[in-house]
Amino acid sequence: MKNYAREAISKIGGYVPGEQPRGLKRLIKLNTNENPYPPSPKVEEALKSFDYRRLRLYPDPCATELRNTAARVYGVKPEQVICGNGSDELLTIALRTFVGEGECYAYTEPSYSLYPVLSDIQGAKPLPIPLDENFDIPENAAELARDAKLIMLARPNAPTGNLPDEERLKELCRKANGVVWVDEAYADFAGSSFISEIANYPNVIVSRTFSKSFSLAGLRIGLAFAPEALINEMNKVRDSYNIDFLTQAIAKAALEDVEYMRANAAKICATRDWLSEELRKMGCKVLPSQSNFIFVKPNRPASEIFTELRKDGFIVRYFNLPRISEFIRVTMGTREDMESFLEEMRQLDK
Amino acid sequence: MKNYAREAISKIGGYVPGEQPRGLKRLIKLNTNENPYPPSPKVEEALKSFDYRRLRLYPDPCATELRNTAARVYGVKPEQVICGNGSDELLTIALRTFVGEGECYAYTEPSYSLYPVLSDIQGAKPLPIPLDENFDIPENAAELARDAKLIMLARPNAPTGNLPDEERLKELCRKANGVVWVDEAYADFAGSSFISEIANYPNVIVSRTFSKSFSLAGLRIGLAFAPEALINEMNKVRDSYNIDFLTQAIAKAALEDVEYMRANAAKICATRDWLSEELRKMGCKVLPSQSNFIFVKPNRPASEIFTELRKDGFIVRYFNLPRISEFIRVTMGTREDMESFLEEMRQLDK
Repeated sequence: MKNYAREAISKIGGYVPGEQPRGLKRLIKLNTNENPYPPSPKVEEALKSFDYRRLRLYPDPCATELRNTAARVYGVKPEQVICGNGSDELLTIALRTFVGEGECYAYTEPSYSLYPVLSDIQGAKPLPIPLDENFDIPENAAELARDAKLIMLARPNAPTGNLPDEERLKELCRKANGVVWVDEAYADFAGSSFISEIANYPNVIVSRTFSKSFSLAGLRIGLAFAPEALINEMNKVRDSYNIDFLTQAIAKAALEDVEYMRANAAKICATRDWLSEELRKMGCKVLPSQSNFIFVKPNRPASEIFTELRKDGFIVRYFNLPRISEFIRVTMGTREDMESFLEEMRQLDK
Repeated sequence: MKNYAREAISKIGGYVPGEQPRGLKRLIKLNTNENPYPPSPKVEEALKSFDYRRLRLYPDPCATELRNTAARVYGVKPEQVICGNGSDELLTIALRTFVGEGECYAYTEPSYSLYPVLSDIQGAKPLPIPLDENFDIPENAAELARDAKLIMLARPNAPTGNLPDEERLKELCRKANGVVWVDEAYADFAGSSFISEIANYPNVIVSRTFSKSFSLAGLRIGLAFAPEALINEMNKVRDSYNIDFLTQAIAKAALEDVEYMRANAAKICATRDWLSEELRKMGCKVLPSQSNFIFVKPNRPASEIFTELRKDGFIVRYFNLPRISEFIRVTMGTREDMESFLEEMRQLDK
């Protein structure tokens, strides 16, 4: 049968998202880095007070109020903000804006498994940049990526959880010939952000998502911050009405209660640090995490532990990939969830 | 200053959506083909009963329940349905799936002004197919589009409002070498749909939107129906979580009350037919419409009428483009809105 798709598409498998189990009972879901706490009460208010009749009209294509609020919270100008249908959409827009078919696109490895898939879809020439032995940006990153139109990296990194060094990132931004995209999906769980640096580099874009720290994975909203010239180009690629009316209202409400998010993030960080320590006491290797998950090398093979955890109702993430196949990635649930998890890990260790 | 964007992007202006006026008083908005009636009461229920705490989790990446409901309503299999963040996103996915950089992409003209913009963004080779003197598919369409990987057309057509001939469309589908995309954004206002034809052609895709007949422009939801092989390829390009939790629930509720939508569509068609007749009596040329808008050639220059309507609080759409610069496009409001509009047109005619 004839295949009508571009060869770039027909030959690939596509991205496989983390499992979203349905209908299973007594399950502790620690596999897609969701937040165990509900969204802000302001989100509930925004939802309940939304007049459904407004849905008959198109939303503001510029998401003006949401961008104004984001600009205030993050200390940038509204013209330096673009909203996406999840930060995944912003990553897609990045490829489509900056990387033509056959052009070079660099991304760090191991990192978010969507990065290479985006390359496949765009038909770009993929250039994986191996992170160093500490999963940090390698010193020769700019040299390796000299032909890249776009360099994508996550800070903190996923699935390893560590925070790449700021000075190395600055050096990369200074030396890079292309755009450097800093994916800060997990930055609210770290003590550091690169957002203010968009004032200092013409080629830097920083993205955020509401899916982790704001407990809004189900809403699909992401932001990117960049010099206005880069935002303008991305806006040409963005669908005009990519953010619906409800999402604009709810995301704005969440931003207006940023303290609530920060309090949850602090609880999650405390759970993370406590659990990391307890697992280390058991002899597991736990990478230093500045995220809402930990990357753990258990005392027994990771693939076995993954399967046994699954059987007992704990879903974590396992990547059968070079350099990381000895680890499992564990999202932080509530303290109670993680006490159960620790107990289970102790059982599996016997 | 260095421009980091692809040349395909930096050289274009991007799509300009219809005006979304804010803060203006006493305005009758007849410019973006929105529905004057509110969404179904089932939409209100779905919104009010939605538990905001579910938003902390990722939505179903396959939108299973929504697709199952759509499959039932439209008489296809769930595997033949893909959901988009508005049908605009589906059109974007179409280009990215089927048309590589520099490959040929055909679209009818005059039609939806987004079609050529999508070509610019993808870096495709654009091939406009001129509609015939009745704004119908030309008899030699397949021949003109023989190199096209994708042929896009709207049925009913916008902004002209007419329903292209079914037999000509079938001939095009049979003879085309590429995919034929039938954009049915306005089909609920016509007596005809091509959806069932996806069973008969391996290369046909039909798209629908909830923005017009379902009164849900603010929600951003579109559907496409196609043979499973085409859906599978498009799913590789689609962002995994492109439809948020709320949108899945609300769109499903709207589909479950399809009778409510049909009753509104019938009212709008009645208003359309009445107004068309009244304007013809005044001497205006009104194209036969099977949509929720009419395309009117007034007795005075269209650009003048457009400006004077605007001054008096009626926003309609004017396209300063070849073949259609003598017309204005007028969305159907309520019967009362259109009585005011008719009165205004009579005043302007004096």
